Amino acid sequence: MATRPIRLGLIGLGQVAQINHLPAIKKMREVTLGAICDDDVGKARELAHRFGVPRAFSDFEELLRVSDLDAVVISTPNHLHAPMTLAALDYGKHVLCEKPPARSAMEAQQMADAARRTGKILMYAMNNRFRSDVQILRRFIEKRDLGEIFYAKTGWLRRRGERRGAEWYSNKRSSGGGVLMDLGVQMLDLSLWLMGNPKVVSVTATKYVQDPRRDVEDTLAAMLVLEGRACLTLEVSWALLLEKNFAYLNLYGTEGAALLNPFRLHKEMHGNLMNVTPALESDRDNYKVSYEREMEHFLRCITHGEKPQASAEEGLELMRVIDAIYESADARREVRLH
Amino acid sequence: MATRPIRLGLIGLGQVAQINHLPAIKKMREVTLGAICDDDVGKARELAHRFGVPRAFSDFEELLRVSDLDAVVISTPNHLHAPMTLAALDYGKHVLCEKPPARSAMEAQQMADAARRTGKILMYAMNNRFRSDVQILRRFIEKRDLGEIFYAKTGWLRRRGERRGAEWYSNKRSSGGGVLMDLGVQMLDLSLWLMGNPKVVSVTATKYVQDPRRDVEDTLAAMLVLEGRACLTLEVSWALLLEKNFAYLNLYGTEGAALLNPFRLHKEMHGNLMNVTPALESDRDNYKVSYEREMEHFLRCITHGEKPQASAEEGLELMRVIDAIYESADARREVRLH
Amino acid sequence: MATRPIRLGLIGLGQVAQINHLPAIKKMREVTLGAICDDDVGKARELAHRFGVPRAFSDFEELLRVSDLDAVVISTPNHLHAPMTLAALDYGKHVLCEKPPARSAMEAQQMADAARRTGKILMYAMNNRFRSDVQILRRFIEKRDLGEIFYAKTGWLRRRGERRGAEWYSNKRSSGGGVLMDLGVQMLDLSLWLMGNPKVVSVTATKYVQDPRRDVEDTLAAMLVLEGRACLTLEVSWALLLEKNFAYLNLYGTEGAALLNPFRLHKEMHGNLMNVTPALESDRDNYKVSYEREMEHFLRCITHGEKPQASAEEGLELMRVIDAIYESADARREVRLH
Amino acid sequence: MATRPIRLGLIGLGQVAQINHLPAIKKMREVTLGAICDDDVGKARELAHRFGVPRAFSDFEELLRVSDLDAVVISTPNHLHAPMTLAALDYGKHVLCEKPPARSAMEAQQMADAARRTGKILMYAMNNRFRSDVQILRRFIEKRDLGEIFYAKTGWLRRRGERRGAEWYSNKRSSGGGVLMDLGVQMLDLSLWLMGNPKVVSVTATKYVQDPRRDVEDTLAAMLVLEGRACLTLEVSWALLLEKNFAYLNLYGTEGAALLNPFRLHKEMHGNLMNVTPALESDRDNYKVSYEREMEHFLRCITHGEKPQASAEEGLELMRVIDAIYESADARREVRLH
Amino acid sequence: MATRPIRLGLIGLGQVAQINHLPAIKKMREVTLGAICDDDVGKARELAHRFGVPRAFSDFEELLRVSDLDAVVISTPNHLHAPMTLAALDYGKHVLCEKPPARSAMEAQQMADAARRTGKILMYAMNNRFRSDVQILRRFIEKRDLGEIFYAKTGWLRRRGERRGAEWYSNKRSSGGGVLMDLGVQMLDLSLWLMGNPKVVSVTATKYVQDPRRDVEDTLAAMLVLEGRACLTLEVSWALLLEKNFAYLNLYGTEGAALLNPFRLHKEMHGNLMNVTPALESDRDNYKVSYEREMEHFLRCITHGEKPQASAEEGLELMRVIDAIYESADARREVRLH
Amino acid sequence: MATRPIRLGLIGLGQVAQINHLPAIKKMREVTLGAICDDDVGKARELAHRFGVPRAFSDFEELLRVSDLDAVVISTPNHLHAPMTLAALDYGKHVLCEKPPARSAMEAQQMADAARRTGKILMYAMNNRFRSDVQILRRFIEKRDLGEIFYAKTGWLRRRGERRGAEWYSNKRSSGGGVLMDLGVQMLDLSLWLMGNPKVVSVTATKYVQDPRRDVEDTLAAMLVLEGRACLTLEVSWALLLEKNFAYLNLYGTEGAALLNPFRLHKEMHGNLMNVTPALESDRDNYKVSYEREMEHFLRCITHGEKPQASAEEGLELMRVIDAIYESADARREVRLH
Repeated sequence: MATRPIRLGLIGLGQVAQINHLPAIKKMREVTLGAICDDDVGKARELAHRFGVPRAFSDFEELLRVSDLDAVVISTPNHLHAPMTLAALDYGKHVLCEKPPARSAMEAQQMADAARRTGKILMYAMNNRFRSDVQILRRFIEKRDLGEIFYAKTGWLRRRGERRGAEWYSNKRSSGGGVLMDLGVQMLDLSLWLMGNPKVVSVTATKYVQDPRRDVEDTLAAMLVLEGRACLTLEVSWALLLEKNFAYLNLYGTEGAALLNPFRLHKEMHGNLMNVTPALESDRDNYKVSYEREMEHFLRCITHGEKPQASAEEGLELMRVIDAIYESADARREVRLH
Repeated sequence: MATRPIRLGLIGLGQVAQINHLPAIKKMREVTLGAICDDDVGKARELAHRFGVPRAFSDFEELLRVSDLDAVVISTPNHLHAPMTLAALDYGKHVLCEKPPARSAMEAQQMADAARRTGKILMYAMNNRFRSDVQILRRFIEKRDLGEIFYAKTGWLRRRGERRGAEWYSNKRSSGGGVLMDLGVQMLDLSLWLMGNPKVVSVTATKYVQDPRRDVEDTLAAMLVLEGRACLTLEVSWALLLEKNFAYLNLYGTEGAALLNPFRLHKEMHGNLMNVTPALESDRDNYKVSYEREMEHFLRCITHGEKPQASAEEGLELMRVIDAIYESADARREVRLH
Repeated sequence: MATRPIRLGLIGLGQVAQINHLPAIKKMREVTLGAICDDDVGKARELAHRFGVPRAFSDFEELLRVSDLDAVVISTPNHLHAPMTLAALDYGKHVLCEKPPARSAMEAQQMADAARRTGKILMYAMNNRFRSDVQILRRFIEKRDLGEIFYAKTGWLRRRGERRGAEWYSNKRSSGGGVLMDLGVQMLDLSLWLMGNPKVVSVTATKYVQDPRRDVEDTLAAMLVLEGRACLTLEVSWALLLEKNFAYLNLYGTEGAALLNPFRLHKEMHGNLMNVTPALESDRDNYKVSYEREMEHFLRCITHGEKPQASAEEGLELMRVIDAIYESADARREVRLH
Repeated sequence: MATRPIRLGLIGLGQVAQINHLPAIKKMREVTLGAICDDDVGKARELAHRFGVPRAFSDFEELLRVSDLDAVVISTPNHLHAPMTLAALDYGKHVLCEKPPARSAMEAQQMADAARRTGKILMYAMNNRFRSDVQILRRFIEKRDLGEIFYAKTGWLRRRGERRGAEWYSNKRSSGGGVLMDLGVQMLDLSLWLMGNPKVVSVTATKYVQDPRRDVEDTLAAMLVLEGRACLTLEVSWALLLEKNFAYLNLYGTEGAALLNPFRLHKEMHGNLMNVTPALESDRDNYKVSYEREMEHFLRCITHGEKPQASAEEGLELMRVIDAIYESADARREVRLH
Repeated sequence: MATRPIRLGLIGLGQVAQINHLPAIKKMREVTLGAICDDDVGKARELAHRFGVPRAFSDFEELLRVSDLDAVVISTPNHLHAPMTLAALDYGKHVLCEKPPARSAMEAQQMADAARRTGKILMYAMNNRFRSDVQILRRFIEKRDLGEIFYAKTGWLRRRGERRGAEWYSNKRSSGGGVLMDLGVQMLDLSLWLMGNPKVVSVTATKYVQDPRRDVEDTLAAMLVLEGRACLTLEVSWALLLEKNFAYLNLYGTEGAALLNPFRLHKEMHGNLMNVTPALESDRDNYKVSYEREMEHFLRCITHGEKPQASAEEGLELMRVIDAIYESADARREVRLH
Repeated sequence: MATRPIRLGLIGLGQVAQINHLPAIKKMREVTLGAICDDDVGKARELAHRFGVPRAFSDFEELLRVSDLDAVVISTPNHLHAPMTLAALDYGKHVLCEKPPARSAMEAQQMADAARRTGKILMYAMNNRFRSDVQILRRFIEKRDLGEIFYAKTGWLRRRGERRGAEWYSNKRSSGGGVLMDLGVQMLDLSLWLMGNPKVVSVTATKYVQDPRRDVEDTLAAMLVLEGRACLTLEVSWALLLEKNFAYLNLYGTEGAALLNPFRLHKEMHGNLMNVTPALESDRDNYKVSYEREMEHFLRCITHGEKPQASAEEGLELMRVIDAIYESADARREVRLH
């Protein structure tokens, strides 16, 4: 493919999530790691050693100054997405930025502007779009196997007491919000993208904060009225009393209905209602594979001019919806967008 | 209990649903059938013969004129609930009226006024409240086993192509609406009643009409913002492409979460998250039992002055919510109630 | 449909199997029973009484002489299929004859000749063709969902010691053969019909007779080489040491593979191998429904000139294959047909 | 047991399959690796290093010239089985040769002749014979728990698109054939051996080649008429549209019936039909164990004069049957053997 | 078989249990009902009418005076077993008496004496011995498939709140005891009989009475030391907090172990531990069949001189053990028998 | 917590069981390994090297003389528990001694006396008490969720032929007994402790020795009559013909019943019988966690004066019961304790 491998820099702040792409990167011939940065410089050096990366920094600007890096992956707390992305683009690097795009639409707007201005790729790491089952579902939707989707619902519910990741998740200044910023943003992006990115007409949301000492929501429900005849409901929580955690996405169309986790399709064929399910037995590497495919796509965007999935514009649009959801949940009133 | 059995009249219009209470009535010593009415007089006579009922009519006013009837059960198409109930109350009969209460809050208001004016019992036949699992759940909620319920969701989804009952269901003039009037009204009543009849602050709904030749909705989704911190989402459909029909109600509280169909409770006990489920193996007669208990309760309202479950006032409040849901779904906008 | 109902005569010889069509006949307005015949005349009268049939005979020729009968159903031991069918056709009756068509291709030839000569309908009661799942499968095959079927296998295996029906089943003179005549004929007809009635090029078969006192086989396996590239293997038994009885039919094609009992389809869709299964939960009345549909079809053949499924010619062709299978199994050598 | 360990040479050509015996060899005190050979000499050296083998070659004749080797394992593409075995025997080595024995009966004849002439052991690596469940089944058959086996069927079906191993598998010159040479040979050997190596009277087979650019079959079905009253049907494929791959062997006898994968036995005991199954919970190491037992047996053949399982003569007989199957499938006609 | 049918009288006291044998009796040609007796004479007449029995009484002595009755079935509360059996034997009738034999060994002694004195058959209705699975197990034990049974345990545990039958069960005067007399007697008889009626050396038991207003035990556990090396533990309850009721019997022997409910056998065969289970799919009529076989056996005792299963002597021995269990449970001390 | 870590010595004799606590010890900051002892000094050194332990001995007295060790873990054959514990206590070390406490109550008495005399901690390693499910159950019992426990049963049954550990297990001199000393001691301790250590009034036991060449029992059953109204039955075996090994403990109380393996609770709540089960999905590390919690507790006993679970006194009481069980089993008579 490419004549020489893309040289990548990784920027993290002690976050395990950032390692998601590492196994993929190490397997691919089209990419090589040129530098790694973590405020825990020991950790950065250990990773650099383990993966044969020539340089390790604790200051991300130093990394950006490395001239032979083509692109960076930014995997830091949410409040750093915008400033680091802006800096990286200005240094002429392509950027793969972790989800959520930013803390607000305003930040996402600045990021999109910078991408346009610099002509560099800005892509958000919405890896769920690259899962095997999601790819299959996408193809069925594109082939119009579902007909017109008129009703959709999605959710990600986690059991109270499960670990929620690093401390900054619960701090609005660094996270931008609670479970909507953590889990909701992923299901929302996936749902809207699979539905063909319809316009969101209005949003009605409620949220629940269990622990009054924290300023981020634990549970949030929202109804999105979409252009045309459809609507999408969303529910996310970190803290329900549940037997099992689960995430789902159900799409109901005039010709078929599709469910994720596990993937199932209900469809009329030759006059009979049939269930259509993948015959592959296991989905164990559904997630692992998603990171590989995402990285391959990011590289093709750089080398072959492919249009990024989860582009700067899509990220901006997503953050507008998220801003509206928070506005509605705070006011306990509908908020209209378009 | 009562010195003589309550004498009951049954008013139906060829509807099988009306027979729901018949097996219960025949088993109980506290009640006896005095008359039966159906516009298909042959059917009325057949039923009268089968159950040893002395009189059969095709005109419901004739039935109401029978002086020794204490009460009537009204099980007719929705547009007849209001006029028949008004007439029955005016004839001095107690009334058990099938769900939904009426086609609109305006009708339900007239019915509640008439009940107050005549001093007779008006009760709506919300039999789900009397199911065994619901009764257990109700007791757990009353004992505060769930703590504060901050999030609730409910739904009843049926497969496209399943029979939907009589033709008048699809005719707005006779039904007052589509699946919300048929299935939604039941889940909504059940949810709000179990939550302690909280005030509904606002409603946002969308609906979908599959067959443009019909004037009632097939699918409807709604989000109800409730007073306090809670919300309730509702989804109902007659026409999704599903593998199985199902109805559910999930209540998430600070101390426990409860699910119906099947009934399960997730609860912290002595510091551990435990699942609590009924040990009784079968729920086969969950529904059959609900009709018996409902009839027993109705009789105790008449004979012992018990306060009716699903009273005229509760029915009116429910219809106000339903009116608001339809208004919101038509305008694709939030509607505020209180 | 028809201006007057078809008047039917039933001819059985104490066989319960014959009652298969009775429930269907009683439900249909297009057909009425005019006479019934059984060598056990008491049984005939009892059935006639139970179903309101005006005449009951013990001599089938008497039944045939009843002038207002349009058609007869012949459900007698195998050796009577040919003579009774010939007589019925000569009396100007349409005939629905139970499977197997006859004891041999020679008999089936006479029956086909008589049908052609008299211009009456002769149809064999291959009810499996009318099962719900088989009808679905047929439609998928016709729509080319399987592509070219290149390999097929079928079988019906019963546990040793299960009751095998009347005594004449084990007597070659009356049955024409053993398990191939009982179970094999049904699976063979179903397989070849679903595959589009391909020519059978050659047959290799082996059989096993467990009880040397009987002159019919208990177990039989055959391989049929078909024109084109396909083959069909068949295995049938009355007497294996099995945990469960089962019957199956597997069709492997270039685009998809289909299995019966239960019905499943494995198929590539949009580049993925998918399982396609009916979403209807139960197949309880799969068989009951088959008799109704078969009778409806037979009546439409009479009244609307529909071409019979399982016609005299198909029955003859089937018996040619069966003759060849027996010839091969006796000689333990291949027998070539076309 | 033996005073000194048998010294073994391993001959492979970049084939992973060859490593099957390695874990067993490393665990056993009765055997030691003296040399290893692979045309990829780097791979040979790496393996030699990993397992402490003193010598590594890329030319197998060099290996054969090592004077202190007692025996060799030949695990190369099929067309090399015969020439390498001949050379090894001539160099005075005992030989354990991978399945299939050769590409044809003619080659297998030369191998058997050479073994007889040199007096060295020639054994084919039919490891399935050494599986735990197969060993149990063998014992039940020897104890006459099945009585006379009168009907047998076996098969190994793989899903289309599954990897089929190295490229030479699809090249008739190097493989000798398609799926019959890969999977069929194993099930055929297992079936005939468990049945007591009955004579094959005739063979009727059909095959299907999906991809016309390849000269080996993807799917093959065969019926083998055996001496006495039994028959054996075989079906093998690399390329069916299946949900799951599976291999099976069913043996039906007068006193009992046995199934493999998983192992089950249906048997009359004291007048009742009973299911007899191994109580051991897992069969995870069924296959791993088979290689250990096979190697132990091979060593005992060398050191204690045990008669080899899967001897040169059995391999020759097996190849005669395979030749006949191919001849029949090509001509679409029966081929008679004995 | 018999030249004329045995004529039977049925003696019950409003007990449904007594009807257990009725379906069997009506199906059998070897027996006919001559009279029926119940203190509820209306019930007796209704039953007599329903089953075509010529005479119905409310006084059992009247029934006994009917001269053409050969035998009676006594199905009355426990305290009537002895006096009614004595009277029936003295009237020259054979007796099939429901379990338990009596309230005490003393009563059972009188019954055995009377049977010996009159020369009539006295058999106890231990129908569990005649269940299909028990008969299979019995045959395996007789064929020494278990070797020496050295450890046995049995129990029957019912959920608290389940209906326990008529009121007299809880009244020691009429029942002779609690759950041991109801459920324990059956499992004890079954266990000892299957083990070959070994001598009971000593008994240690404890009991628990939940409701202090009742004088019979709800729960009882016992350990029986048997002659030789074996022991048997027994646990019975009417009133545990259980998810499911269950009854079981486990027999552990040197060659095999057997379990009931469902029947399973673990056994070494040809050196492997195998599970042996009946291949018959359903045990639905396990119990229904037991009553038929029991009645057939009772008739053969009368007509063909077969030795009764559950004879007067076995019943006496059983009551001696039960007396000892109660004595031990009262004293909370071991009681030695032999 | 503690200012400096407790320094521990490990004493084993080639027993793998001893390694149970090692992973826990290595993870904890409150403890460090100071020395290790094994009669196989090579093994001791290997372990010392692997875990960075400064000293390794083959003579346990040498280890005891190491002055900076605070405590020792004794994990040796049973006959060494007493002498080594006595020596360790005398050297001023705290002792965590593996189960069973000793071979007899007499030895356990000496150990308890020494602990009292030296003022050092002596704790027995009853790790089952520290399992997650057991801890939950304990809390429910303490909160009186079961009410009064009136009936208990426990057992641990292993399949014949499973490995039973080192040879000394079968030698009475070194083990003190058979399966009761290996498995029984654990279930007995767990049961009595959960029941609140009730007094054992009397014991009736039987045992079975399969292999006459060995002097320890393979199978043992016992009934323990407890003070108050309760009893406890125990069954243990190394050598039954079973499909699966299993261990269980069932406690039946007036308010609830509890089962272990898996943990379930049946309980009346608000008038309904409910099943209460932990919502945590997996119990994989139930056992691993038990060793960590046990070690943490032992350390807190040393550093914070916590009262040891499974103290010297509890161990003595347990050995008294075990002595009585053996006495009863030998005499086949009841033995009374209190």
